Amino acid sequence: MKLLRLLYEGKERYGKMEGGEVHLLRGNPFAKLKEGEGRLGLSQARLLAPVLPGKALCIGLNYRDHAKEFDLPIPTSPVVFIKPPSALLAPGAEIIRPTQSRRVDFEAELVVVIGRRAKDVPAKKAFDYILGYTCGNDVTARDLQPKDGQWTVAKSFDTFMPLGPWIETELDPSNLAVSAYLNGEKKQSSNTVNLIFGVPELVEFLSSVMTLEPGDLIMTGTPSGVGPMNSGDEIAVEIQGIGRLVNKVR
Amino acid sequence: MKLLRLLYEGKERYGKMEGGEVHLLRGNPFAKLKEGEGRLGLSQARLLAPVLPGKALCIGLNYRDHAKEFDLPIPTSPVVFIKPPSALLAPGAEIIRPTQSRRVDFEAELVVVIGRRAKDVPAKKAFDYILGYTCGNDVTARDLQPKDGQWTVAKSFDTFMPLGPWIETELDPSNLAVSAYLNGEKKQSSNTVNLIFGVPELVEFLSSVMTLEPGDLIMTGTPSGVGPMNSGDEIAVEIQGIGRLVNKVR
Repeated sequence: MKLLRLLYEGKERYGKMEGGEVHLLRGNPFAKLKEGEGRLGLSQARLLAPVLPGKALCIGLNYRDHAKEFDLPIPTSPVVFIKPPSALLAPGAEIIRPTQSRRVDFEAELVVVIGRRAKDVPAKKAFDYILGYTCGNDVTARDLQPKDGQWTVAKSFDTFMPLGPWIETELDPSNLAVSAYLNGEKKQSSNTVNLIFGVPELVEFLSSVMTLEPGDLIMTGTPSGVGPMNSGDEIAVEIQGIGRLVNKVR
Repeated sequence: MKLLRLLYEGKERYGKMEGGEVHLLRGNPFAKLKEGEGRLGLSQARLLAPVLPGKALCIGLNYRDHAKEFDLPIPTSPVVFIKPPSALLAPGAEIIRPTQSRRVDFEAELVVVIGRRAKDVPAKKAFDYILGYTCGNDVTARDLQPKDGQWTVAKSFDTFMPLGPWIETELDPSNLAVSAYLNGEKKQSSNTVNLIFGVPELVEFLSSVMTLEPGDLIMTGTPSGVGPMNSGDEIAVEIQGIGRLVNKVR
């Protein structure tokens, strides 16, 4: 099922994609989700980011090729940082380049959406705690990302966490093509088989540190090919089996 | 006013300290807060962390003496990392040392509680956006904190963000004694006059990057004297004009 969140008659609602249309639902996927009344064309739906995360846990340098691109050693345990909820951006909305930065990069990522509270979950049970998967863009002010310091500032500007367009709940995340297109030109192209730490391992590692709550996100890291975005650009993150997250850049 | 949050008849309520007693309030300080009915002795009140933050922004190396203690250069702009909401811990509750770590440190900190949505706020207007101040303990698994990597894992374990006991809403944060006592022995002792980036400057800097929401926290950093805690220890963070945050260690 492809679960999305939209603004409908001024209210935030969940819906699902079916036969190219949005079917409205009642409730939310973290409590109770029921069939609703009404449907609308996707082009009529004003999509929101498909979830409001309590925390967005991000993994750095999790593709071998991306670590190599920045001449950094392959991590022996996941490198973790957190993006704030205030950075969330809806599909189709504008990424705003901050005045402080001269280089704002895209980073295409597979994003895990946690469905149930998880603590000390072994890898082999990880899928029991996952609601589904969506596309994310870990937008980064590259020139503000110090090589030997915390990455938080460079990655926490408002609009720096585009997410969507929906959550695919039935998907094996182990072998998915992950791509980024800048103005239609393919810039990143990899596959989740190249992840250093796969989805089950990330759930095990992160839940050994902290309680994962329903709606929390794991942004699994980006492959090689990251690059800058300029005003007027269109950036698309595409993941096999999920769909395409498109944002313009201001 | 000293605003606290407590569990009362199974519900989360706000209260205020007055004449050594807790006076119950209705509503919450981020929307509308009204006088309530009933009062109780502080020792009868089961205190909760005084706020559930959307994001907890933490400043590293913000006292000259602490940077010196770790032989690190004085930062020229704030070093920022984020603790997840899942790390929050109530006054009086137990800090749990994770099995992954052999050294868990206390870090006494003045914590700013944001009261109103803030974006691009100049330092001289910062106080308009602050609800008040509380005590925080930026608990850190020191042996898991790599010198040249992200600090998130080392600082994000469950129970690693003790906060409280209450929010003092009438306070000048520029000249406050900040101390930590381990089993009654003073281990940290400094004053917020020694902050490299003061409270107004932090609000200006952080709100230039991201929107600060009501209930968000700024943990302003810790002075020198941090050290390990062991099972059975009692750690107290005391800040002049606010009070004392006490937790046991398991």
